[in-house]
Amino acid sequence: MPIQAISWSPSGAVRIIDQRALPDAEITRDLESAESVAEAIKQLQVRGAPLIGIAAAMGLVAGTRDLRSAPRQSFLAGVAQLSDLLANARPTAVNLRWALHRMADVAQATLGESPAIWERLHAEAAAIWEEDRAMCRRIGEHGLTILADGANVLTHCNTGALATGGIGTALAPIYLAHEQGRRVHVYVDETRPLLQGSRLTTWELQHAGIPCTLITDGAAAALMRQTKVDVVLVGADRICANGDFANKIGTYGLAVLARHHGVPFYCAAPWSTVDASLADGDLIPIEQRAAAEVTVMAGRPIAPDGVAALNPAFDVTPARYVTGFVTDRGIVQPPFSPT
Amino acid sequence: MPIQAISWSPSGAVRIIDQRALPDAEITRDLESAESVAEAIKQLQVRGAPLIGIAAAMGLVAGTRDLRSAPRQSFLAGVAQLSDLLANARPTAVNLRWALHRMADVAQATLGESPAIWERLHAEAAAIWEEDRAMCRRIGEHGLTILADGANVLTHCNTGALATGGIGTALAPIYLAHEQGRRVHVYVDETRPLLQGSRLTTWELQHAGIPCTLITDGAAAALMRQTKVDVVLVGADRICANGDFANKIGTYGLAVLARHHGVPFYCAAPWSTVDASLADGDLIPIEQRAAAEVTVMAGRPIAPDGVAALNPAFDVTPARYVTGFVTDRGIVQPPFSPT
Repeated sequence: MPIQAISWSPSGAVRIIDQRALPDAEITRDLESAESVAEAIKQLQVRGAPLIGIAAAMGLVAGTRDLRSAPRQSFLAGVAQLSDLLANARPTAVNLRWALHRMADVAQATLGESPAIWERLHAEAAAIWEEDRAMCRRIGEHGLTILADGANVLTHCNTGALATGGIGTALAPIYLAHEQGRRVHVYVDETRPLLQGSRLTTWELQHAGIPCTLITDGAAAALMRQTKVDVVLVGADRICANGDFANKIGTYGLAVLARHHGVPFYCAAPWSTVDASLADGDLIPIEQRAAAEVTVMAGRPIAPDGVAALNPAFDVTPARYVTGFVTDRGIVQPPFSPT
Repeated sequence: MPIQAISWSPSGAVRIIDQRALPDAEITRDLESAESVAEAIKQLQVRGAPLIGIAAAMGLVAGTRDLRSAPRQSFLAGVAQLSDLLANARPTAVNLRWALHRMADVAQATLGESPAIWERLHAEAAAIWEEDRAMCRRIGEHGLTILADGANVLTHCNTGALATGGIGTALAPIYLAHEQGRRVHVYVDETRPLLQGSRLTTWELQHAGIPCTLITDGAAAALMRQTKVDVVLVGADRICANGDFANKIGTYGLAVLARHHGVPFYCAAPWSTVDASLADGDLIPIEQRAAAEVTVMAGRPIAPDGVAALNPAFDVTPARYVTGFVTDRGIVQPPFSPT
């Protein structure tokens, strides 16, 4: 069974598995405030576009517990302020802003005093989470058609139970195929610099008993040339109206390689990942992270002191490289409209 | 100035910089026997196709010092046995076998007793090293034409002073361009799993004062799409008669990406890298290295216990992706004949 990446603590804090520590250690953290949730998102203790949306919504609930005794206007001001704080934790994934807008709208629309609004926010966060779980399952069901018995799938980063409230996005079809008894084998890109593939994806696939083989990011091309990859399946952090999408750095290279070798390339994501306000991928803000993520590994320098390093967290894959978008609404093609 | 990767110790041992320890520590080791040289090659204390050829030749000299008092036949038998041992240290690079064949031929052809043969071997190892130094320089001179002032070069693995007896192969044109005052900037692929790019290439470029930026292997595609790369320049471990060549895992993917983005892709190597006995790249033996190189980093596990990992040390790039081969004989095109 896939593992559970997020839950409520008995005191109403946001309980997470600290994903930085995996697979070395399974550390659970109870985040009591919106500030600590924002910090956990920044530090990638919680990551994965859908999961950070859920975490932010839950963080807003945990962070406004103490405001329940305040007057309505103070409560709403607190919601707005904490919502801004959470929204700015990471710039690229659209789900974060999507979840927080939804929470803010609900807060505004709820009549009555602070306790009533808070209860409504709590229910909305639960709904976002529950909907995500259901969306994961629907993505999995729609994606089943692309995974024949015996399929070798190549995936990048982590798009599974650790990235969502449910069974994942790009990993969801794999979980369901395995559940149904189809033989599926997954090549897992280690995904430098933060190794979400080696640390997280292999860990959750192992938990679920799904056969997988870890490779370095640079080995994917040779595997494709050897016709060992039947399909590439990746997630997305933001999808534009024209179908261009941002995902973990390295995704675009895989898309080019898949096209070159005639391997189908699918992007799996919930519909909430679509940001139809952006016409194309050039408009997506790309988060530049610290050079130390590239130059230091497990606390030890792996490059000389003072060397310059570029560390974009994401790249943009133009829509023309994508065979199909596996969403909770089916396998679809751009353009995407807001509704 | 580029650094010096190999030399003789005062006692006649092979003195190397232990490249596994860089850039953390600069450890010099004196290898007294052929066995210890073979072990150092296996463990990648010494690496880089041209350098392991030189190290093997020097190792044969160091390892036969004690046989000088033996009769001619015993000495020649010792040369043959140690030569086999050294040749089997790594399977892919052709330079290793090329250098050892040359040493064996010289031993057989030298008249007289063991001391005379040993002196001849010593001179031959020195010649192999000296020729390599000169070859590096010629590769650099021929390669200058592909590096315009202001060029941004992308390179993979380490093909510099640490991989050769001189100023390198793919880095040689960069060293000479810099020496002549051309502005050159190098994007350095970190080159997982063993990080020769981040540990070695940035280190030696920094030593020489050449501007460079470290990137993860997965970031190269996005840079090419952003037209930030003017030319890709890589080395080779073995080049076949038809021009297919083996090089560090990840090279083939770069070749496909370069082709896709219209970026010139050059392979730089000494002529001794050509193995005209192999018709094409399918015949090159590819070394499979331990999974632990992928799953463990700086002594710490970065993947769950028991996860399967593929770790081919090299991939094969078909000749059709190569704009030109920068060799000591000029920038050439296949087919290559033995002479």
